[in-house]
Amino acid sequence: MINLELIKSISNPSPSKIVLVVIDGLGGLPSPETGKTELETANTPNLNRLVAKAICGLTDPVSPGITPGSAPGHLALFGYDPVTFSIGRGVLEAIGIGFDLQSRDVAARGNFCTVDETGLIIDRRAGRISTEKCTELCQLLDGLGIDEAKILVRPVREHRFAVVFRGEGLASDVGDSDPQQIGVAPKPITALSPEAGRLASAAHQFVAQAKTVLFEYYPANMVLLRGFSKLPHLPTMGEIYKLKAAAIASYPMYRGLAKLVGMEVLDTGTSIEDELATLKQNYTNYDFFFLHIKGSDAAGEDGDFARKVTIIEQVDNVLSELINIEPDVIVVTGDHSTPALLKGHSWHPVPILLYSKWCRPDRVSEFSESACLSGGLGRLPATQVMPLAMANALKLAKFGA
Amino acid sequence: MINLELIKSISNPSPSKIVLVVIDGLGGLPSPETGKTELETANTPNLNRLVAKAICGLTDPVSPGITPGSAPGHLALFGYDPVTFSIGRGVLEAIGIGFDLQSRDVAARGNFCTVDETGLIIDRRAGRISTEKCTELCQLLDGLGIDEAKILVRPVREHRFAVVFRGEGLASDVGDSDPQQIGVAPKPITALSPEAGRLASAAHQFVAQAKTVLFEYYPANMVLLRGFSKLPHLPTMGEIYKLKAAAIASYPMYRGLAKLVGMEVLDTGTSIEDELATLKQNYTNYDFFFLHIKGSDAAGEDGDFARKVTIIEQVDNVLSELINIEPDVIVVTGDHSTPALLKGHSWHPVPILLYSKWCRPDRVSEFSESACLSGGLGRLPATQVMPLAMANALKLAKFGA
Repeated sequence: MINLELIKSISNPSPSKIVLVVIDGLGGLPSPETGKTELETANTPNLNRLVAKAICGLTDPVSPGITPGSAPGHLALFGYDPVTFSIGRGVLEAIGIGFDLQSRDVAARGNFCTVDETGLIIDRRAGRISTEKCTELCQLLDGLGIDEAKILVRPVREHRFAVVFRGEGLASDVGDSDPQQIGVAPKPITALSPEAGRLASAAHQFVAQAKTVLFEYYPANMVLLRGFSKLPHLPTMGEIYKLKAAAIASYPMYRGLAKLVGMEVLDTGTSIEDELATLKQNYTNYDFFFLHIKGSDAAGEDGDFARKVTIIEQVDNVLSELINIEPDVIVVTGDHSTPALLKGHSWHPVPILLYSKWCRPDRVSEFSESACLSGGLGRLPATQVMPLAMANALKLAKFGA
Repeated sequence: MINLELIKSISNPSPSKIVLVVIDGLGGLPSPETGKTELETANTPNLNRLVAKAICGLTDPVSPGITPGSAPGHLALFGYDPVTFSIGRGVLEAIGIGFDLQSRDVAARGNFCTVDETGLIIDRRAGRISTEKCTELCQLLDGLGIDEAKILVRPVREHRFAVVFRGEGLASDVGDSDPQQIGVAPKPITALSPEAGRLASAAHQFVAQAKTVLFEYYPANMVLLRGFSKLPHLPTMGEIYKLKAAAIASYPMYRGLAKLVGMEVLDTGTSIEDELATLKQNYTNYDFFFLHIKGSDAAGEDGDFARKVTIIEQVDNVLSELINIEPDVIVVTGDHSTPALLKGHSWHPVPILLYSKWCRPDRVSEFSESACLSGGLGRLPATQVMPLAMANALKLAKFGA
């Protein structure tokens, strides 16, 4: 296990620049027809050009066999042990929609659901109402008058919403109201510690008022809440690595995660070209860039092998520009695998390449899952990527005398 | 380090089936004549057929350089850190002879030994008396009348026996009587905590009575006891993995270990064919099978290179039947290495293959120590085998969102 305190004690600011390119869900599985993965199928001359001067390997975001969500996958790449630094479901839901959470806020994930006339849950998702309907209902619930806290309700998608309790003295350790089954009543929200009494009371009132307001909106006539949580206390990347770090990402979730670890989040567009343009515009102002590409994961989730291949090729195309800028360290990897064949995140290790003048190149000549197997980085926990990038940027002093 | 609590929190029951084939002592060392290990010498067409669709690697049961006993080797494969979950010597001795230990029992390993007329030990093994003689003497000691506990004495082999103290309020932290040297008297058994006073008294009385009973049975005229211990508290595989797990093993030690982690132990015969027949008969009733093959380890311990090769070939022969059943996940590995050249367990990492539809196959084309070196699993702690098998059986949910 890498010790953040150790890294903190030996990291030094310097002008050298690190670019971490995260191709979301990069790793794949071979197509039964060709025996090649998405990355192996893609035509990637620029990645292969970089590989020739780089050191390669495969990362485990959490540990072998564990399929990470987006948050653990990224925290690991930023150097934070994702099991130690876990982020609550409610906070992720709020971050995912770009909600600007404050440190005293408690966030919960909400579902609109259907209850029968006796109050028993008959559909935990209220027939998956439309996002438009969800938005309309959230407006009814937003700002409900509760003594202990200001109530902020925001739509997510379909039946899902986020609710934020804003006020002083709110501890988040209260139980869910969502029993995660049908045929029973929503659970009363209970404080799990004396400090959480105030939030439990606020959440209880919110649920009671929501039930009254939603009475006439069958099938969305009730709410279920779970994952009450506050922003975790993470040491920032500035504190640990002495980096001035910037995030370039178009999706709110990744912008939120970057902000959590103290990066500055830059305004950018939605395409990979937009993101690279943003990097070039801001290149002199930061010494670390996190560049996030979402499309590959979305294609994998959709089971669209060909689209994932295309997106990898688009990244490759843009990479030539990045290479021309000559950052001291370029890392290209993913936060986890999302094989099109599995239509979801998976546990498979993720290809990584690390280029620097000082990287001790291996003999890998193409960027692929199978070629990276024999790479010089071997198979490594993703939490070791940042220390390696820092070392290759000559930003880490000797440990011990 | 994999956290069992983490696995527990994301494991789900499902109909998919996992078969873990443990070829005891599988790993070897190359013969000086041929340069090939036992596994590399064996003709294994079925294993190689499986390897073509599988992912391979090498496991460390405890950590590099550490030679595991049978218990740590198996606990690691079942996913339990063998250093955290240690099993006392006495308990292992009792389990090894199929003794049905109860949770309140304290077990100790016993040696018949020889003392001179002044009570000093002159042979810690009583000239390695025969197992028949040991059995006869154990009958004399079994049921000796002690106030604090019922005494159960069972022969193991040659001079070795197991003694179980059964009663209420027996804590096991008492010192050994075996000084592990000759020329001194057996040590008085002392309580290492106030709670252990009752057991210390019982054990003291047992030793005193045994000395009287054995007076006329020179050279086996005294006993030495060590490794007082109780059954450890292990979370079951059902609790951690939500598996309905069955063990198919012909040796008591492995049946006992399987029972310790909550597997159901199936009746089976002594041959590999018997074991596979048992698996087929019970295939619909469980979703996890631990199939243990002992002969390979025994051959290695005997230094019989050729016999170990033959046993590996017998396993390979039976494997075709297992492959035909089409379990979702097949893992073939060992609990440790037992090179015939070393005539004993060793620290060398153990070849592993994991087959599933979702395993991301590597380019390894034969099952051998040297080929597994370049396998896609790399070199991994044996405790990671179960999470990987679970992931490949699609029984693990995503960690974090």
